[in-house]
Amino acid sequence: MMSGDRGLQVTAPAVSQALGRMPDLFVIAVGEQAAMASALEELQNADRLCFVAASEVVEMNEPAAMAVRAKKDSSLRVSINQVAEGAADACVSSGNTGALMATARFVLKTLSGIDRPAIVSALPRADGHVHVLDLGANVESTPQHLLQFGMMGSSLVRSLEGIREPTVALLNVGSEEIKGNNTVKAAAELFQDSSLNFVGYVEGDDIFNGHVDIIVCDGFAGNVALKTSEGLAQMLTRTVQEEFRRGFWSRCVAVLSRSVLDSIRRRIDHRQYDGAVLLGLRGTVVKSHGGTDPVGFARAIEVAHSAAKNGLVENIRKDLDEPVTQKDTA
Amino acid sequence: MMSGDRGLQVTAPAVSQALGRMPDLFVIAVGEQAAMASALEELQNADRLCFVAASEVVEMNEPAAMAVRAKKDSSLRVSINQVAEGAADACVSSGNTGALMATARFVLKTLSGIDRPAIVSALPRADGHVHVLDLGANVESTPQHLLQFGMMGSSLVRSLEGIREPTVALLNVGSEEIKGNNTVKAAAELFQDSSLNFVGYVEGDDIFNGHVDIIVCDGFAGNVALKTSEGLAQMLTRTVQEEFRRGFWSRCVAVLSRSVLDSIRRRIDHRQYDGAVLLGLRGTVVKSHGGTDPVGFARAIEVAHSAAKNGLVENIRKDLDEPVTQKDTA
Repeated sequence: MMSGDRGLQVTAPAVSQALGRMPDLFVIAVGEQAAMASALEELQNADRLCFVAASEVVEMNEPAAMAVRAKKDSSLRVSINQVAEGAADACVSSGNTGALMATARFVLKTLSGIDRPAIVSALPRADGHVHVLDLGANVESTPQHLLQFGMMGSSLVRSLEGIREPTVALLNVGSEEIKGNNTVKAAAELFQDSSLNFVGYVEGDDIFNGHVDIIVCDGFAGNVALKTSEGLAQMLTRTVQEEFRRGFWSRCVAVLSRSVLDSIRRRIDHRQYDGAVLLGLRGTVVKSHGGTDPVGFARAIEVAHSAAKNGLVENIRKDLDEPVTQKDTA
Repeated sequence: MMSGDRGLQVTAPAVSQALGRMPDLFVIAVGEQAAMASALEELQNADRLCFVAASEVVEMNEPAAMAVRAKKDSSLRVSINQVAEGAADACVSSGNTGALMATARFVLKTLSGIDRPAIVSALPRADGHVHVLDLGANVESTPQHLLQFGMMGSSLVRSLEGIREPTVALLNVGSEEIKGNNTVKAAAELFQDSSLNFVGYVEGDDIFNGHVDIIVCDGFAGNVALKTSEGLAQMLTRTVQEEFRRGFWSRCVAVLSRSVLDSIRRRIDHRQYDGAVLLGLRGTVVKSHGGTDPVGFARAIEVAHSAAKNGLVENIRKDLDEPVTQKDTA
């Protein structure tokens, strides 16, 4: 259940960590056979690890359609094939998101009742985390699509976190004359009439400071929110590092502050939130961050493991069969 | 040139700071006469300060249309009237953004050639700042609107910062199969054919880590980006404060680190970026942040002062008259 797009120096230690942490995990490593064998064979728990060869690699900026059409033996494609064939319960990749989504849709197909798969990830906040979707699988969403995202997000939180009636909000803006655009307003009516535990609108600052379990938005807004916060976090981290390295006194203070700084770092460590799920497919596919490291990739494997173990796809399928458009009949 | 929506405990010291810093500034304070007189009369430089009475206040969550129709003597309306009548060169308010925009459009009107006014603000990054628009005046924008935002943003940076050919980028997402939505792609073609110094697409993380002077987006995406980063910054600040207050050692370290922490705080102080300009109107209106303090409001006054002094509205008007849709004729 993995594809080695990110390079073995990241995936090998990540697999090692994951195998150590999850005793029921079995890993199928997909990639260039010889390199994998030498990097992975000496790992502990190698009895729960096997290899499947793939001769090609999808480049990070390769057009998705090209990857689907032309690279039938890419590590990405072969990994997803493992899920389609039932050899794996889930697939994890840190490769090209567009190609991953396109290949997954092509090979696995979407669940009936789902027009568009969506990308969901947990994002941190002071008192826990929130699941936000769509983070960029779709750039134009109808109100009906947003409702489907809400339903899939609810299934995910119910399956993975055991919250029976997770709260769902729609991302909106509040500063213009009439609150929200037409799509969001129409979606709010659909949400209101559904069986979802819909709590209304939230704004961008509520992602990190709010209280809902799920925030639904179209993939354009979701991707902007995600990338903007990644960019800000990077800038702030760099600023803090620069200031703690500026001159002798600052360096001394940095040494003295190490335990405090470390505990701040642990609390806001973005690697805890690695592992975005591609929802709405007939199989579990998890995207690890493009610039991930062993800790992040191991966390993504954990997300895939939990989704497979808790029957995420099956639960979404069941939830879709229930009437959700009329509250009274639910 | 001010409206007292935020309360005199903020505006009075802000006006005092601003009058001290800008010797050619003259302030017309608009609000409830008696309260203002007692709070402001003892300020230094009171010779450059006068009062205009307003008997009503627009509440922060009052519908914009209602404010325009029913509150003809609000501090917000009276302040904008000062600009319309030529008594003031610019107006600053930290009140209800929707009401401010609606009233400004109603009283001042938009410049010919501009379909929709936009809200622009500078946002920080390591090597300076970037101007982003629209931050929430519009929730559905056509490619043509985005082009107008690009033109107004360029005029602003040229007028206020003296950069002759500021670089302009379009905010987009990169993770879906086909890069961007139809509006952004169509806008890119218009930008390409215009006289703007268009440098292509950027993504959310480039707001804080990029190199362009102006980023153009629709108001929904812009507002999401702005609010999301405000929320993240708040959460991170709180986390750092909590960790530096956890136990005796952390408190000691906090005292030792004070100079470093202060210099970090100074570098990322959001109050430096207070003062968003409502662009596209026949007059200068500046919005100060709803939760501002004297430092932030004084900064917003400075933005208004600079816009008025550098003839921002006149420059936008001139730039609009020039042919911008065909590069060769520019």
